[in-house]
Amino acid sequence: MAGSDSADLAVAVSEAGGLGSLACALLSPELIRAEFVSIRMRTSKPINLNFFCHQPPANGAERESAWLKQLEKFYVKLGISLAAGASGPARTPFNETHCSLMEELRPNVVSFHFGLPEAGLVQRLKKAGVTILSSATSVIEARWLEDHGCDAIIAQGFEAGGHRGMFLSEDISIQTGTMSLVPQIVDSVKVPVIAAGGIADARGMVASLALGASAVQLGTAYLFSPEAKISPLYRKALTHAQEGQTVLTNVFTGRPARGIMNLFVKEVGPMSKLVPQFPAAGVAVGPLRTKSEENGSTDFMQMWSGQSASLCRSMPAAELTRALAEESGLRRPS
Amino acid sequence: MAGSDSADLAVAVSEAGGLGSLACALLSPELIRAEFVSIRMRTSKPINLNFFCHQPPANGAERESAWLKQLEKFYVKLGISLAAGASGPARTPFNETHCSLMEELRPNVVSFHFGLPEAGLVQRLKKAGVTILSSATSVIEARWLEDHGCDAIIAQGFEAGGHRGMFLSEDISIQTGTMSLVPQIVDSVKVPVIAAGGIADARGMVASLALGASAVQLGTAYLFSPEAKISPLYRKALTHAQEGQTVLTNVFTGRPARGIMNLFVKEVGPMSKLVPQFPAAGVAVGPLRTKSEENGSTDFMQMWSGQSASLCRSMPAAELTRALAEESGLRRPS
Repeated sequence: MAGSDSADLAVAVSEAGGLGSLACALLSPELIRAEFVSIRMRTSKPINLNFFCHQPPANGAERESAWLKQLEKFYVKLGISLAAGASGPARTPFNETHCSLMEELRPNVVSFHFGLPEAGLVQRLKKAGVTILSSATSVIEARWLEDHGCDAIIAQGFEAGGHRGMFLSEDISIQTGTMSLVPQIVDSVKVPVIAAGGIADARGMVASLALGASAVQLGTAYLFSPEAKISPLYRKALTHAQEGQTVLTNVFTGRPARGIMNLFVKEVGPMSKLVPQFPAAGVAVGPLRTKSEENGSTDFMQMWSGQSASLCRSMPAAELTRALAEESGLRRPS
Repeated sequence: MAGSDSADLAVAVSEAGGLGSLACALLSPELIRAEFVSIRMRTSKPINLNFFCHQPPANGAERESAWLKQLEKFYVKLGISLAAGASGPARTPFNETHCSLMEELRPNVVSFHFGLPEAGLVQRLKKAGVTILSSATSVIEARWLEDHGCDAIIAQGFEAGGHRGMFLSEDISIQTGTMSLVPQIVDSVKVPVIAAGGIADARGMVASLALGASAVQLGTAYLFSPEAKISPLYRKALTHAQEGQTVLTNVFTGRPARGIMNLFVKEVGPMSKLVPQFPAAGVAVGPLRTKSEENGSTDFMQMWSGQSASLCRSMPAAELTRALAEESGLRRPS
């Protein structure tokens, strides 16, 4: 939920008995420290810090300028100079600096997306007493994660919003639904499995436990809370999103992610073969997203959502967490 | 399960407390009568007859010959004359003749795929006391089915094997996983909902009920029973199918269906824009399928499967039905 979450959200969830998470993919090390300190001033409950661990793109300047060229007509349409899309903030994968910071901050849990960082960094985290999670979109990825030191595996079904965690395949046509994926991963690994994807209310939570999951992960459901830092336009789009209005698209970042369909996704995607490698594709899209939102239009906005937005309720994150625990009959951890 | 099921299978399931089904899409009216009579001689329990209700393709001769031309290299490879693919058996949608036959045979349940037949035929079935089911792959399809007289709706999630029942959209990119689809359909219609897609063992059954389904539909699980009329090659492929080895493809019939990936699907699909309208695409593929199987190769075979084949067990259908009921804690209907 990088870019949409907040320290407030993480605190609210953890204080209410869930495992609150802070997405660190878009934050500098200084900001990560500041946010974590702010969280720790308000809760001593377990907290998860989340990182991306993609391979940074190799030299792709040619591809990036071709991509920018492809988007030129939209720049013209929105009255933006092409120069604005030539560079932008990068998403840094988990590295040495982050690892030292984790050794200093010692969050209870660190979770990764797109596999795991190199073995040396994983070992250092384990030595620091950190529990390590990562997402698998297939049985083979789940086994890989277990073999490489994951303490629990998030089984991320096809329904899930945001980036697919896939890292051993790039083929979205073989991605598996939560109902099917969870029990197959449960049968294939010894570590606990956390179900994710399409789970937005107590029914999905109970169903996931029936499938053999030890816990559930909800993302989209918390975008409906006031603690989520999302624009009113995005929030409004979420409240109207029917189950058939999200799609897996790579046009915002270069990697497939599920979000609400809009003009940009329709015209360039949903899956484009021309996108530069993740996360470089996002640089050229950034100015379009910003301008679109300024104009009060969702046409070019990146609006991640799972397939179950219509099951979500707008309420404060702590209240939602307690309601879900109660409705599902799950005890809050003591 | 047209082409893979049998009267034996339907009898075994119904006698064991499930609702056994006979797929009629590939059977002549005479054969439907003969099969139903054979079933009724062996069980008085409820039985479902299943039909397709697609629009027969409009004049598509040009497209069909272009498609055959596209497949020519495979004909050459397998040493088949192109003439063999110029015509073949048709799949007839549910019509006046079928309806009269249902009025005569009075099966307890008639289920449809691809929507519902015209209103007059639906009314006649209802008058004959037949319970009517059909599959929805979206909330909008579920509402449509309820509005048009469906007595219960099969919520067919993305994971399901065989043809997608989709009939109000042709866009597979917006198809929804079972975990997400079932509760959203449950919330949107008043009739009972039957969960389908990725459910292959007691865990999926219990999970589906937690999501609000009133019943579950299992297909792939029964392909593992000796009563399923499938070739040894297909059976072997099923027993080895991992969760990421099936794909939605339209290359066998012209409509998207989930099956096990093979050479033909890889080379021509999985989704081809050149296929003739369902079911005409299947005519030219027929000889390739037959020859491939004769050669002991799955390269061109049509092997429908859901995403949960690895959860299935090879056992007689009655035994499987009883085991699933017991393991899931579901009572057998008295």
